[in-house]
This record gives sequence, structure tokens and C-alpha cells, in this order.
Amino acid sequence: MTTQVGQFINGQQVAPQDGNLIDIHNPSTGAVCRQVEMASSARVQHAIDTAQAAFPAWRATPPAKRAQVMFRLKQLLEQHSDKICALISEEHGKVLHDAKGELQRGIENVEFACGMPQLLKGEHSKDVGPGIDAWCEFQPLGVVAGITPFNFPAMVPLWMWPSAIMCGNTFVLKPSEKDPSSALFIAELAAEAGLPPGVLNVVNGDKAAVDHLLEDSTIQAVSFVGSTPVAEAIYKKASENGKRCQALGGAKNHAIVMPDADLDNVVNALMGAAYGSCGERCMAISVVLAVGDEVGDALRVRLSQQVETLKVGAGCDNSNDMGPLISEAHYQTVANFIESGVSQEADLVCDGRGLSVEGYENGYFLGATLFDHVKPHMDIYQKEIFGPVLVMLRVPDMQSAVNLINEHEYGNGTCLFTRDGEAARYFIDQVQVGMVGVNVPLPVPVSYHSFGGWKRSLFGDLHAYGPDSVRFYTRRKAVTQRWPSANLREGSQFSFPSHS
Amino acid sequence: MTTQVGQFINGQQVAPQDGNLIDIHNPSTGAVCRQVEMASSARVQHAIDTAQAAFPAWRATPPAKRAQVMFRLKQLLEQHSDKICALISEEHGKVLHDAKGELQRGIENVEFACGMPQLLKGEHSKDVGPGIDAWCEFQPLGVVAGITPFNFPAMVPLWMWPSAIMCGNTFVLKPSEKDPSSALFIAELAAEAGLPPGVLNVVNGDKAAVDHLLEDSTIQAVSFVGSTPVAEAIYKKASENGKRCQALGGAKNHAIVMPDADLDNVVNALMGAAYGSCGERCMAISVVLAVGDEVGDALRVRLSQQVETLKVGAGCDNSNDMGPLISEAHYQTVANFIESGVSQEADLVCDGRGLSVEGYENGYFLGATLFDHVKPHMDIYQKEIFGPVLVMLRVPDMQSAVNLINEHEYGNGTCLFTRDGEAARYFIDQVQVGMVGVNVPLPVPVSYHSFGGWKRSLFGDLHAYGPDSVRFYTRRKAVTQRWPSANLREGSQFSFPSHS
Amino acid sequence: MTTQVGQFINGQQVAPQDGNLIDIHNPSTGAVCRQVEMASSARVQHAIDTAQAAFPAWRATPPAKRAQVMFRLKQLLEQHSDKICALISEEHGKVLHDAKGELQRGIENVEFACGMPQLLKGEHSKDVGPGIDAWCEFQPLGVVAGITPFNFPAMVPLWMWPSAIMCGNTFVLKPSEKDPSSALFIAELAAEAGLPPGVLNVVNGDKAAVDHLLEDSTIQAVSFVGSTPVAEAIYKKASENGKRCQALGGAKNHAIVMPDADLDNVVNALMGAAYGSCGERCMAISVVLAVGDEVGDALRVRLSQQVETLKVGAGCDNSNDMGPLISEAHYQTVANFIESGVSQEADLVCDGRGLSVEGYENGYFLGATLFDHVKPHMDIYQKEIFGPVLVMLRVPDMQSAVNLINEHEYGNGTCLFTRDGEAARYFIDQVQVGMVGVNVPLPVPVSYHSFGGWKRSLFGDLHAYGPDSVRFYTRRKAVTQRWPSANLREGSQFSFPSHS
Amino acid sequence: MTTQVGQFINGQQVAPQDGNLIDIHNPSTGAVCRQVEMASSARVQHAIDTAQAAFPAWRATPPAKRAQVMFRLKQLLEQHSDKICALISEEHGKVLHDAKGELQRGIENVEFACGMPQLLKGEHSKDVGPGIDAWCEFQPLGVVAGITPFNFPAMVPLWMWPSAIMCGNTFVLKPSEKDPSSALFIAELAAEAGLPPGVLNVVNGDKAAVDHLLEDSTIQAVSFVGSTPVAEAIYKKASENGKRCQALGGAKNHAIVMPDADLDNVVNALMGAAYGSCGERCMAISVVLAVGDEVGDALRVRLSQQVETLKVGAGCDNSNDMGPLISEAHYQTVANFIESGVSQEADLVCDGRGLSVEGYENGYFLGATLFDHVKPHMDIYQKEIFGPVLVMLRVPDMQSAVNLINEHEYGNGTCLFTRDGEAARYFIDQVQVGMVGVNVPLPVPVSYHSFGGWKRSLFGDLHAYGPDSVRFYTRRKAVTQRWPSANLREGSQFSFPSHS
Repeated sequence: MTTQVGQFINGQQVAPQDGNLIDIHNPSTGAVCRQVEMASSARVQHAIDTAQAAFPAWRATPPAKRAQVMFRLKQLLEQHSDKICALISEEHGKVLHDAKGELQRGIENVEFACGMPQLLKGEHSKDVGPGIDAWCEFQPLGVVAGITPFNFPAMVPLWMWPSAIMCGNTFVLKPSEKDPSSALFIAELAAEAGLPPGVLNVVNGDKAAVDHLLEDSTIQAVSFVGSTPVAEAIYKKASENGKRCQALGGAKNHAIVMPDADLDNVVNALMGAAYGSCGERCMAISVVLAVGDEVGDALRVRLSQQVETLKVGAGCDNSNDMGPLISEAHYQTVANFIESGVSQEADLVCDGRGLSVEGYENGYFLGATLFDHVKPHMDIYQKEIFGPVLVMLRVPDMQSAVNLINEHEYGNGTCLFTRDGEAARYFIDQVQVGMVGVNVPLPVPVSYHSFGGWKRSLFGDLHAYGPDSVRFYTRRKAVTQRWPSANLREGSQFSFPSHS
Repeated sequence: MTTQVGQFINGQQVAPQDGNLIDIHNPSTGAVCRQVEMASSARVQHAIDTAQAAFPAWRATPPAKRAQVMFRLKQLLEQHSDKICALISEEHGKVLHDAKGELQRGIENVEFACGMPQLLKGEHSKDVGPGIDAWCEFQPLGVVAGITPFNFPAMVPLWMWPSAIMCGNTFVLKPSEKDPSSALFIAELAAEAGLPPGVLNVVNGDKAAVDHLLEDSTIQAVSFVGSTPVAEAIYKKASENGKRCQALGGAKNHAIVMPDADLDNVVNALMGAAYGSCGERCMAISVVLAVGDEVGDALRVRLSQQVETLKVGAGCDNSNDMGPLISEAHYQTVANFIESGVSQEADLVCDGRGLSVEGYENGYFLGATLFDHVKPHMDIYQKEIFGPVLVMLRVPDMQSAVNLINEHEYGNGTCLFTRDGEAARYFIDQVQVGMVGVNVPLPVPVSYHSFGGWKRSLFGDLHAYGPDSVRFYTRRKAVTQRWPSANLREGSQFSFPSHS
Repeated sequence: MTTQVGQFINGQQVAPQDGNLIDIHNPSTGAVCRQVEMASSARVQHAIDTAQAAFPAWRATPPAKRAQVMFRLKQLLEQHSDKICALISEEHGKVLHDAKGELQRGIENVEFACGMPQLLKGEHSKDVGPGIDAWCEFQPLGVVAGITPFNFPAMVPLWMWPSAIMCGNTFVLKPSEKDPSSALFIAELAAEAGLPPGVLNVVNGDKAAVDHLLEDSTIQAVSFVGSTPVAEAIYKKASENGKRCQALGGAKNHAIVMPDADLDNVVNALMGAAYGSCGERCMAISVVLAVGDEVGDALRVRLSQQVETLKVGAGCDNSNDMGPLISEAHYQTVANFIESGVSQEADLVCDGRGLSVEGYENGYFLGATLFDHVKPHMDIYQKEIFGPVLVMLRVPDMQSAVNLINEHEYGNGTCLFTRDGEAARYFIDQVQVGMVGVNVPLPVPVSYHSFGGWKRSLFGDLHAYGPDSVRFYTRRKAVTQRWPSANLREGSQFSFPSHS
Repeated sequence: MTTQVGQFINGQQVAPQDGNLIDIHNPSTGAVCRQVEMASSARVQHAIDTAQAAFPAWRATPPAKRAQVMFRLKQLLEQHSDKICALISEEHGKVLHDAKGELQRGIENVEFACGMPQLLKGEHSKDVGPGIDAWCEFQPLGVVAGITPFNFPAMVPLWMWPSAIMCGNTFVLKPSEKDPSSALFIAELAAEAGLPPGVLNVVNGDKAAVDHLLEDSTIQAVSFVGSTPVAEAIYKKASENGKRCQALGGAKNHAIVMPDADLDNVVNALMGAAYGSCGERCMAISVVLAVGDEVGDALRVRLSQQVETLKVGAGCDNSNDMGPLISEAHYQTVANFIESGVSQEADLVCDGRGLSVEGYENGYFLGATLFDHVKPHMDIYQKEIFGPVLVMLRVPDMQSAVNLINEHEYGNGTCLFTRDGEAARYFIDQVQVGMVGVNVPLPVPVSYHSFGGWKRSLFGDLHAYGPDSVRFYTRRKAVTQRWPSANLREGSQFSFPSHS
């Protein structure tokens, strides 16, 4: 019988009992590997209530003591790394070594959370006026929620809840229903690490659960990562309901290749950045802008050579470079984009369709695909494909490349390949993108910086994880204090007071 | 003929020409003192376009050079202080010494903005990975808007635009149409201080202008201060239109008076905090919670004695303690609240109605009003009155007082009067309010801290002015940089990269 | 045969071979428990050379990777906590539960060091001039040394080297020759945690070793904790030799007891703070200032009652409150102080001399001692005794108490017992002491703040551990960068340049 | 009669009365332009006593109020800029436009000091333990002293005292006796700006005055800028006397010119950086390292061409590029260096000796001098010349250049000219120098960063001005606070306390 996955509430697994089960597929085989219960509204409410009940005691726990849980969690994540990666790979399809990279990034967010006593420091000002001191405290919000996508089932939750709970909040996580098991297992590890029951709760569900979270008046804030249309809808709804919200959406990340770039490095970098995790990363490079035809021609040759040797196969085999797409439906979406590229007269250099992996004939495998001579009006340029499809445009100079990037709807990540200091500085300054790489194809900020795109890649003003997450998950409280002398007589002041 | 006030666009006054003029009254006399043009949609658009045109050059101006404008503006504000205060007092009604206090606070925001080179520093990390550096830059957003209330016509605009433009943005301000002249005059001073044309623009208008700003796609962010219903509506609309927004709303600020408090101090503090500026301050104390009847009885006696001696009169006479309300309509609203208090059986100790100021018989004067034995269900307790009406409730102990505050809709400011360190610490920790005073009746944070309430007193996650404003008015850009060796060959990496 | 302790160099124990062995006594029994080799000059030089050799690779290791060693070290310290505490207790004499407290504090310094990637961030300024950026990096110094005292043989080394090496330095530690074993064992744990050989080295020795470290030109900085005369000498010598130095010295920490203090709490707090670890703590309370005779009389009665019930005995027995002094010589010093108190006519309320602990007759036990009516001129007030001797002075008011503290040679720690907010604020503001407690008898800053006294309690400008330690163990490097356009011609500038 | 310059004590000029007058020469004419009194020991003591007397009230003045003085001082410095520059130029000899650059930099330090309320913020931690809060305050030291050099008579004092006094200290400045008038005049402006008497005092003198300052027990800290031998002596003496000290010394700043550098830019940059202010700047470029003979040959040609056109003459004529040296004695020192270069067989390309300026035949003029093919062992390479002498070495590659820099005694400033991002990053990382420029010849950090060299260019751990100066001029006070419940009974704790 298929294993059934339920919820994690109040420090323990809650087995399915509401009857609404959906299948989880192994994308490498196409087979159902588990079933997950879509939590009923009552169950979601129970999770929220539990989190609310746990809040006062957790809020009163000193940050340094909270941090002990994070220190232990780091150990447990490292200790159980193989199991977590296996769960990720089985449900998501990505190759194990890639799952390992994902988990490592998640662990780094836990490491950052260990430093919370330092990060939560408020600002203290002696003598803002005669005998008057002022300071601010960053206090927790209460119950906050996270809604996370399928493509990084372990990492993106770890962007959110470790920081949120270390700030003193309690948390309800709704992971993707396509691959929830790693997040659930990590919640168990958190409990083992000493996290008090109710501080972290995981509920599975679909739009109904999301709506419940967005409408509930207990939830104070929502962090979301997913596609832009959903991010926008969630941001609006959360804002409408008086919650603070940060909603991270889609991307179309461009790499500019300058004539002075080391092409061997560029090709290696692009192969990983475009096709790693089958292109299902919001930081994947999906557009390459070749500055000059010489660069374009050379890239076309070298990339297509590399694509030939790319090893596509099941996620559980570490010798593979790339695994399957997440689902049959998504396979079709990506294939349709390829078709649209052809029909809009882009130059299809490598066609990943029709790939069959021996022994995994029902897996959702699509080979690495490369288009050249793509034009800005084409759908394969305009839209986020979220698959192993790299499109190349030829541009005459760097300014044209920067213009293209700045005119695009998305502004998540970008990269410039060059050796030239001036070009790099100009690019960093001018490009309308939140995360900028110079010779770094996937400029995902390390855990002690913050992650966020610009334009329609992020709704909200604070970025994810790192320093911004501390501000997002806390409320500023400003205190002004003065101790009166017993015998001091003071005249009433009817003017607006100026301390200084 | 009545002076007609227009807009301030592209570095100069734009005389009314669209024909839609409304009257500005002097609340002390009831007479029309000016007329202000409600900007047409085309005019608002012109202001936005002007700001957008000024953006690239201003963004490229080094912050230390931008700051020179602020240094000069501080001088000019001090130099023209009498004129500014006269404008404030004439159109708003507050007494000149109170206008001076307001302006002083505004100047302090300009002083803070002078320090922007220090405040804009990003975080730099060497060696986030082998040979890889990362840093963040806080870049300006573009054109941002501010919508400000009548009660601090000079100060609240200065909360916003100095910080915003020092971050490199350009600005469109829409001040209150009831008293726009001080903000317009200050914009002229900014131009005199060297602010390039188009960086700061002021448009007058009503809901139509506000809607234009909220719907325009050029505007990147909106700062608002006003009543809670409008704040909420603006926050929703701005969020819906993809803008970042901070919307500060109303308040019902409670002061708790403990039995160990020095009552002379308390009474003096409460008189100013409740009746200063006629109670038209979002930080006014409008509720006093007497802990124990002994305190309550004593306060009742002393407050009513003080009310007797309170001098109410025209704003232009510095010997007055309190001026008129802003308008006839608002006078009626406040008077209705008093009536409702009586009809809901609160104990009306001092009744400010029926006051007539000699020589100013048409002014909107309402005397200081005090209710005792008010109950939580009454409208005069639940609602923000925004007038010189102080309501007292008797509570048996401090916990009851804290509970009342935490259950109230608003969470802007609050104050505890005590000598006891433990009581203060408990209060600071537990109270669900953004700005907390200990023996400081109006705990408005100084300019180098940030201003913001909790609950329905603020929509958004970042507070006004101070450090939070720098984060609000900038976008974080995360850069990751690596310089390749010419001869280095690197294998493609298909796993998700971990720098460390 | 007695175990012989050597050095820890280049990642491993170096057995004694230079022949210069001295005895380590167990203060509870008086017996020799180990012998420790005083490193020869060649051996000390070897440790320095080893540290220097390890520097380039360690400096180039990304901070986040360095931090992995700290994460593992924390685990190992917790795992081997019993063994470490046994070593501490055996060689120092303190009771095991007290050793546990010491170790816990040391572990917290390791936790702080785990956050180094965040702490090492430099400041980045875009556009300090047109097209010019500037930032600073905090780079390691090279080889640094720590010289630590007997009284916290595990904790004080952990104040220093975790922060120092996480900043990228390599380290030579010279622990106290009286109880070196816990520091040596912890160095082994660090190696087990993955610290590369040579990054941390431990040499045992006396003044000759210290002088070697202070004179060697490779050593860049010295951290010292010990008595004031030695601290001063070390600071001068290090400064003379061009090293940066922080040298923490002695203390005479006063507690003020106000009439409104809760005396039960005060007495409990004072008992622990005065007699814990036999008073051999630089943060021990050794002077109590009773404000008013009523307080003084009450304290005298209650403290002497408590002293009666104080359980003094061997460090290995966790039921004891207090163990022996560190050595026979130190016993004599403390006993002489008691004698001097008597001869200078202080009022000896409790006399700890003549105590004999059954089964431990050769231990260096001295009972808790209390003097009342002590005067400022007496030696027992002027000098640091570093034993279980508490002296009480009667003062008429708080100002007199503050004056006494401010006139004393030392300024390490102090505490005020009161309930009064105003008294606390005044005390914090006015007292010339580096670490101030309000109702906290031992105000040792937590690991994410910094530790340091004022006046002759600290030589140097930066405090120990916490944020100051990051600044102490790094050099600021300021970078100003501009990328020229190829074709830009610029005139020479002979004036001193101003970027803005 | 020659004007006689005295001291500035307690808010006013003190005319000479002690009789010990020395001449101030105008280096452009060689004539005596003023006489300055060397303060007697009693006078120096009076300045110290005055500063001490002013300390308590100034310390208690809120930082925001102190800052008002800085805001006004900035205005006054701008308003009196011509007079200040005339004084600088007359006594120092530098050309007026260069004096203007100097003053501008000094004003920027005043601007930084205006932001002190923000900069003085301490760190506040809620809940370091159950119910325990902790924070730190940065409190002033007391009376601090500054000793400044002749080469930037207005700027270097402004590096020090604005920051020091804004931190709440009071100050005694001893400027160079060669050109004290600008510093004295600026002190008058500070008084005019509202600085209370005694907060800033200026005493003139020589080694006797310096020794007095270093030996006086009231002085808490000393900032010094001058030559390395004096810096070292002052650092040792101050340290010996228990003062904190930062002593900035000499320099030999190397510029590396890479083959890909834009030579037109390089030549322009080097001309200004080597010969501006006659080379009497601690940030002057005095060594150029040409990478490859092609670069070396080209630089030799172009630099010598530029030297031909360099206009040398009186400081008061703004058309000049370079003025005289500071004194006849210094002229001889520099001339001797040139002679030694010749005798050690360096290749003298341009010889500045024998220059005569028409109308200024008694001025201390030395023309721009260029040596090529200099070797590392030569005195003109090893020693700081502090004159208009640029020496060029040829090196085969960048690594050789970096090695030379790292082996030199000094480590103040350096610059790399290149277009290559990798070269820049390697240089920044590896070079053992405190202030690093990339295509910026004089990488003096802007006022909101800090200034300091490495190796024997700076003694002390904190750099001058900017953020480090705030730490240097304050003492950290760590507060730990807990408020007891009245009825709480707590057991004594004899173990070392761990808050968490």
C-alpha cells in the first residue's frame, strides 16, 4: 500500500484522516510513490491555533536559548542528509548531487539563524534629550506562514522558518503538495532538536489551504515563493487582509557574454546554470546574450557540443547531470514552448524532445534544448519556461544587452561574463535586477545576505532570508524613557515636544 | 483678492490654471485665507513625468553631494522659521509655539537625512567562497509619492521626502488641501538650497489626485499618514498596483498612571499630551487609565483644575495653550462625540462646548473636555476623536490596563507613569503598541529612530523616517563577483552551488 | 608516575622533552596531580613559526568554512563537558557545578564565533564620487597570542582564540601554568573538529615564555587577562614592541544596596557573587555599600547567617558551594589581608580562617569572610584580595556610594540593587565602571556583547570577546575603486582631491 | 610689527605672554609672517584644566544638541573658506586650490560629525536571559588630545576634534608650530558656532608641550599624525602612561602600472599624486612600479614631458601647480636625498634642484624630480622623502610589484592602475597596505570611512576619523539589567552564571 503523508502539528506527525488524498509521483519513473492528504479547513485552523498557543512561551524564550535548537538542527540535518536528499530526489526528480547542493544551502540558512542573538540587537540611544533615553526592540509578530514551491522542497522552507522562529514567531508551513516529504521530515528533526511543540507546524494542501492561511486573522505575515501570477495574487490578498507579505515570483535570467570573456568558463558555467535541475530554478540562466556574432557563433558551437554529452537520467543516479521535469503536465508545457519557438522562427539548435531514458521510459525526461537567433518578441523569450531551454540572442554591444534586461518583465538574477572592471561596474550599477553576478552564473546570495528580485520577480519591500528576513519577521518597538525626580516640578508643555 | 495657491513642479511654482479652486480657511477666524487649486489629472501626470525625468541624473549624484542640499535646507528652514510657523498656524490653527515644535521636529528629519552617506552603506563580504566576494547596494526606487495629513502640514512631509530623495529617488508630494502652504514654501526653500528641478514636486488635490498617484505605473512607492480607514484603503490599492506602501493610520493612545507616579508631573504631562494642538495629533494621549480609585480621584480633581486655567484662543497669539479645531465640520464631529459620551452615560467632568473666544467668534474653538468613569464599550473610548477630549477609565491594576490597551484596535503610542523599574520593563515588553513611553507622554521617536504604530495604526512592514525609511526608499541589490583566471578550466556544475 | 603535560603545536600534543617541569597541584587535596613542562624558548619559537606557516592558507579559507570548525567544536565541548569540568575542578579547585557554568560561558563564545560571516562584513559605499566606489574589509592580523589566568582556565582562552581564528588569524595560547589541562584538551577537540594544524597552538610557560611572545616580531597582537600590575606591564611591553594589545586586569567590584531593594534577593545574590569560586573572579563582588544603617544592619545579620550554612569543600563534590583557593601561597596572601583588616580595625563579622575540611586537610580551604564597618583607607578596601572576603561599608546615600566607586583604582564591574528606575538610570550614567548591573550581581556581558573594565581594570581601547574582539583581531583595509573609460582624458589634479 | 599668535583656551584667544616666541615663515617668500608663542607648561596645564572643567556639562549635553554646533561650524567654514585657505597657503606654502581641497576634506569630517546621534547608538538586547536585558553605551573618555602635523594644518585637526567632541569629550589640540593659524582660526569659528568655552582648546608648542600632554594624567587619549619615528615614540609614551593612542606615521606609497592601464590617465594621476602639495602628503605617490620595460619607457617619456610643463610658484597664485617646501631645512633634506640617489647610481631623469621662481627668490622651491631605474636598496627608495621626488622601479610582473610593497617598512597607501578585474581583486586582497586604490592614485577614504595605514605607518588598533574614530573616542559600557519581582525568592547561585 502506498505510504500516506499527513500533517505535522504540535510537534508530531498527524496521520491522514480527512480523506482528501492526492498522489505524489516520482518524476523519474512516473509512478506514484506516496499520497499526501490535503488538510481540511479544520486541520489548517488547528495548526494555526496550535501555533498561536505556542507563541507566548516561545516569545519569552531568550534568543540564545532558541538558538540552541538551531545548533542541534544543523547537526541533525547533516546527519540525516542522505535521507533528506533521497526524499527530495524521489519526489522532485533532481539528481542526488543537486539535492545535496540544495540541502547545503538550506543548512546555511540554519547557520545564519544560529546567530540570531546578534542579529536581533536593537539600537540604543543615550540622552536623546536631557535625561531621556530611547531604544528600539525588534519583537516577534506572532504566527506567520510560509508557502513554498516544488522546485526546492527542502531549501525554500529553510529560507523562512528558521529565521522566523528564531525571531520569536511560531510558524505554519505549507510546502508544495508535489514533494512535501523532505519538509515534513525536517520538521520532525526540528522537534528532535528540541523545538517546543507548536512552534513549527506543516500543513499540506492546495489553494484552499492557501486561502485559509491568507484569510485567517491570526496569521500576521506570509512568505511565498512561486510563479509571478500566484505571487502577485497572494501579495494582493495578504495585503488586503492586513498582513505583511513578501511574495517571490518568476524569472527570466539573462547572462551577457562579452567578447573578452573566457569562453571555456562561460560554456561550463552556462551548461550548469541553464540545465541544472532541469532548468526548474528561479535563478537558472534561461537567456544568453552574446555580444557580437563572433561570441554568438562560438557559443553556439560549444554549447551544442556540450549538450550532446549531457547525461540525462533518473535522479537517484549520481552520474547523471540532469533529471526529469516535475510532472507530465509540466513536460507538456515546456514542449509547447519549444514548439512555439519553432513556429515563431527561432533557430532550434538542440531539441530535447523525444528523449527516452532506458529503464525510465515513463519518466518526465526532456533533453537540453538550445535556441539561437531568438528575438525579443518571441514567447520563448518573453515567458518563463522553467525547463531545460536556453535561448540565445545576438546583440551588437553591451548597452543593447543591458537594455533588453531592463525592459524585461522580470528582474530576479543576471550575470555578466567579462574580465573588464569597467564593464562590470557599469553593469552592476545599471541593471534593473536584484541579484547580480559577475562571472558567477547563479548569483544566489549566501545565507548572510538576502535573496530577492526586482520588478515582477518580487512583491514586497523586504527580501528573503539574511538580514532582511530579521526585519520582515519582527515588529519595531520604539521606547522612550525618562525617570522623573520626585521633587521636580515641570510646566505643562502644549507645544509639540522636541527632545533635543 | 484671495491668494491662489497652485502646484510646485520642476523646481518652480505653477500658478493655478485648471480652474478647480477650493477655499483654505483660517480656523481661528473661520475666514478664507487662500484658495488652492486641485490639480487636474494632466497636472499630476506632469509632476510624475517631471520626477521621472529628473531621476537618472539625481540617482547618479553621489550621496555626499546630495546631502549638501540638506545641509543648506536646514539653514534655510531655520532662517525662515517664523514664516513657516505663521503659515502653519494660519491654515491649521495651532498656536505658534506649537508650530515651532512641529517645525523643529521636521528639521531634525532633515538633519538625519544629512547623514545619508553613512546610512546608505551596504554590507561587503570578502571570500563568501574561494575568490568570491559579495556585497549589497541599496539603490533608489525611482519616483515615489507622499500623501500627508493636515495635522502636521510641515513635519510629516519632512518625515518623507528628505529621506526619500537622499536615497536617490525623486518625489511627488500631495499635502493636505486644508493647509498646503507650508509644504509648498518648504519646497521652494529646497530649490533655493540647490535641489535640482524635478527632484521634488508638490501637487495639491483630493481623492482624484491620490487615486492618480496610486494607479500610475511610474510611482514605485507610497508613504501615507492619515486616518486608519484611508490608510487601509491606500495600502490595499497601492499593493494591488504593485507598489510598496507604508500607510500610517489613527490612534487611541492610553496613558497608565500607577499609584507611585508623581502626580504633579503626570497632570502637567497629560494636559499637554491631551490638549496640545487641540488633540489633533496621532500621538496625543486621549485615554488615561487610572490604576486605583485613589489615583483616579486625584487626577480628576487636578485635571479639571488645570482645564479651568487652560488658555484657548487664536493660533497667532503665543500666550494661548490651545487653538481651534481644523474645520467647522470637524468641530461638529467632535461635539457629536461629546454628546454620545453623555448619552452613553460617561461622566462629563469638563465640557468644552459652547466656548467663545472674544474677537474670534467664528473660529472653530472647542474647549478642553474631560470624561471620567468611561467604559470600554463607549464610542468615546472605541473611536479616535481627534479633538481635545480626554477620557479616563478606572482600572484595578496594571494588568487590566495593559489588557485594555492590547485589546484596542489601535496600537500607535502609549505611556506608563511610574517610578518602578519592574513595572516599566513589564509594560515595555508586553504592550502591543509601536511607540512606548515611560514617563514620556508623547513618545515620538527622535529622528534617528523610526516612527510607527502596531495593529491598525500602521499598514506595511517598515516604519516612517529614521533607519527604516532608508530601507523603505531603497531596493536591495545583491552582487556576487568572481574574477576568473585566464587559464583556469572549470568543470560544469549541475548541482546547486554552495559557495563555501 | 605523575602525568606530564607538554605543549600543543601544529595540531598535536608535544610531550615534554625540554626537562623544565613544574608541579600542578589539586587545591582540594594539596597533592601534585600533574606536571607541566615550561616550554623552552625554542619550543615557543616553534609554536610561533608553526602558526605563521599556517596563516596564509587559513586566511584564504572562507569565513563560512572556518565557522564549520566552530560548529563542530561546540558539539564536542558539550559532548566532553564532564571531562573538561573535571580537569578544571581538579586543577583549579572550583566546584564542578561552577566549572560547568564557566564552560557554558566559554561555549557561548564559540557560538558567537559561529556567526563570524555576519560579523566580518565590511561597509560598502557606492558613488563616494562620480563613478567611484569605496568599501572596507576587515582582514586578519597574522599570528596573535593570548595569555590567560588560572581562575577561568577554560573560559578565558575561549574568549580569545575562537574569535581570533575565525577572523582568519592563527594563534598561540599560553594558559596559566597552574591549571593548563582543560585548555590543552580543548585544543585537541578543536583539532578533532577540523581545525587545520598550526592554526591554534598552546605553549606552557612562565614569564620567560610570556616575554618571548611579547618580544617576537611575528606576533601581531596580544590579549591578556590577569592582575593589574601584570596587565600594565604586558600592555607597555607589547606597545613598545609595536603590537596591539588588550590587557585586562584586576577589580574591586562594589554592590550598592538601596533601602528599597528586596533584601532576600540581595543576600542570595551577594553570597554567590562574593564567595562563588572562592572569590577568585575578576567579576566577584568584594565590596558591599549599604545605603543607610538600617540596610547595613540587616545585611550584616542575614549575610552572617548565610555564611554559617555555606558548604565549603572539595571541588569534585557537587554539593559544595565553595572550593579551596588556588594555592598555598595564595591562601597565605588572603589570610594576611584578613589579618590586616583586623589590625586596621575593621569589624570582622565572619572569619574564614582556621577552616578544616574533613578528608581534605591539606586542601587550601578558607571559609567565607565578612567585614563590616570597613573604611576607605583600609587595605582590605583598597586592594584586590581575590579570595572569599566581602567587605561592607556604610554610606549615608547613593551619591556617596557612587563617589566611592568612582574614586577607586579599579572599574571592572558593579551592581546596584534597587527597584527604582531613576536610581538605576543615574547609576548607569554616572558610574565609572565598564560593566554595570542593575539587580544583576555579576554583570558579565553575554557573548554577543563585549567584556571590559574601565580605569586600571583594562589597558587598551577594545574590549574582550563579542563585537569588539572582531575589531581587535582584524585590520581595516579601505579600498577606493574607479574604472576608467578607455577614451576618457582627464586633466591632472594637483589639489587635494575631494570625491564628492 | 609681526603678528603674534598665542593660544586658544576656554573659548577665546590668549595673547602671548610667556615670552617664548618662534617665527612662522611664509615658505613662498622665506619671510617671517607671524610669530607663535610656545606655551609654557603652566599654559598647557591651564588648557587641560579648562577642558576638564568643561567636560561634565558637555558630556551631559544630548548628542543631537552637540551636533547643532557642527551644523553651524560647517556653514562658517564654508563662509570663511577664503580666509582659511589664505592662512594655510601663507604658512604652509601650498597653492590656494590645493588648500581648498584640503579644507573641503576637513569640512567633510565636520559633516560626518553632524551624524553623531546615529553613530553613537549602542546595541540593545532584550532577553539575554529570562527577564534580563543588556545593552551597551558608548560614553566619552574625558579630555583627549590631538597632535597634528604641518602638512595639512586645517584638515588633520578636523579629522580629530569634531569627532572627539561630538562623542562628548573635551579636547586639547596642539597643531604644528610651523603653520598653526588656520587651526586657531577654526577654533574661533567653533566658538562662534556655539561650542561652549573649554570644550576645544588649542595650545602651541614643541616637544615640551607634547610631553606635557603625554604625561598628564587627565588626558585620556592621544591622536597623532606625523612621521613614523615620532609616531612610534608618542605611541610608546602614551601607552606607558596608560592612555589610549592612535599614532599615524610616514609612508612610501607605491603605484603599480600594469601594461593594460590607460597611460594618459596614469600620467595625469601620477603627476598630481606625486607632486601635488610638493609631495608633502602622507598619501602622496612616491614610487611608481612599472610592470615591464615597455610601460617603464613610456612612463619615463611622458612623465618627464609633463614635469617640463609643471608650473611651480607661490602658493597664493592659483595658476601654479605646485608651491614651495615647508622650510629651508626641509629643502636641504630633500636635496640631500636627490644627491644620494645620484651617488647610489639611480637614473636622474628630471632634477628639480636649482629652481628659482621669479619674484620669490627666497622661497623654498624645489622642482619636480624623477628618478628611473631605482633599486630597492637605495635610500631614495627605502626612506620617506616627503618632497616632490618620484622614483620609478622596473619590475617584470605584478607579483614582483606586490612583493616589493609588502616588504617595505610602510603600508599607508597604494594604487594599482589596470583595467583588469582579476588583477584588481588580487591586489586588494594581497597587498599589505591600509588604503588601497584601484585607478585612484590618492585613495584617501571619504569621511564616512576611516583612515589608517598598516605596518609602521600606524601605531594603534583603530584608524582615524569615520566609524573607527567613534570607537576610539568612546568607552564601551555594558549594562545588564533585571528587575526583581517583589515576592520572588531566589536561591543563591554559587556557580558562574550563564544567562541563557
